[in-house]
Amino acid sequence: MTGLAIYRTRIAPEWIDYNGHLRDAYYGLIASLAVDSLMDRLGLDARYREESHCTLYTVEMHMHFLREIGAGDCVQVMARILGSDEKRIHAALELLREDGRETAATCEMMLLHVHQSAPPRTTAFPQQVAAAIAELRRTSAAMPPSGPGSRRMELPSR
Amino acid sequence: MTGLAIYRTRIAPEWIDYNGHLRDAYYGLIASLAVDSLMDRLGLDARYREESHCTLYTVEMHMHFLREIGAGDCVQVMARILGSDEKRIHAALELLREDGRETAATCEMMLLHVHQSAPPRTTAFPQQVAAAIAELRRTSAAMPPSGPGSRRMELPSR
Repeated sequence: MTGLAIYRTRIAPEWIDYNGHLRDAYYGLIASLAVDSLMDRLGLDARYREESHCTLYTVEMHMHFLREIGAGDCVQVMARILGSDEKRIHAALELLREDGRETAATCEMMLLHVHQSAPPRTTAFPQQVAAAIAELRRTSAAMPPSGPGSRRMELPSR
Repeated sequence: MTGLAIYRTRIAPEWIDYNGHLRDAYYGLIASLAVDSLMDRLGLDARYREESHCTLYTVEMHMHFLREIGAGDCVQVMARILGSDEKRIHAALELLREDGRETAATCEMMLLHVHQSAPPRTTAFPQQVAAAIAELRRTSAAMPPSGPGSRRMELPSR
C-alpha cells in the first residue's frame, strides 16, 4: 500500500456482473471518482473549475485487474504522481480491498489540463496547483509500485 | 473504421460528468458491454457460461481517449482480435461517434478464459470457440490500427 489515501467506496450491487463480481468498467469508475478526489486535493475542485473554465481530461488509462472484488466489499484508493509537466499529470492509482488490504487493481492515467473553450485548448496549471502537484510528486513518485505498470500489451504470435 | 461492428449504444444522461461530456469510466463501460457482445459472437454466451461455469476475466485494459462524446450521441464499437492463445484473447476495440464516424477512443484488452471454481482457474477454450476466435483473428488482425495502441506511459522526467 503506497501513496496518498484519496478515496474510499463500498461496492454498489448494480456494479456486479454476470460473473458475480465487480464488472471491469466499475474498477474504472472507482478510479475516475478517485481522480475527482485527487483534483480536490490539488486545488482543481468544483469552484476552481467553475471560475477558470479549466478542468482535467483523461487522455490515457492503463489498468491491471489483479483480484476479484465482490458485492459489499469496501475499496480504498491510493494515489501517487509519477510524473508531471506544466499541463499534464501522470498518476498511478492502487485499488485495495479493505478486507485483506490486498491490491485488487493498479492503474496509470495521463491527465491533461484543458480550458473548456470551443474547441477546448490545453493550458498550464496555475502556480498554486503546480506547487501542490510537485509536492505530491515529491512525496510519492519514488514509492515502490505495488503492481504492474503500463506497458505494451501482446501475446507471442503463433 | 476497422473490424467487426459488435455493439452500438446511445449515451445515457447519467454517464455525463461535470465536464459536460462522457465520463472516462463510461467509455470503459461501453467497451465492457461490447466485449459481452463479442463473447456472444464467439460462443461464450450466457448459455455456455451457465453450462460450463467458464467465462472471460479482463486482466488488462489500456484505453486512449481521443475525442469527447456528448449526451445523446450514439457510439458504435468495432472489434478486432490482435492475438490469441489457448486461453487468452488480445482484443482491440474502437469507439466511433456515429455523427462523423470519428474515432472517439481506442482500447486494447487482454481477456483470460477462466473456470469459476474456488479458486478460479484458467482453462483452454473449447474447440468451437477456439475456431471462432481464430476466424475473427484471421480476418481482423492485419487491419490497420485506427489509433494509438498500448504502450508504456511516461512523461520526460524533469
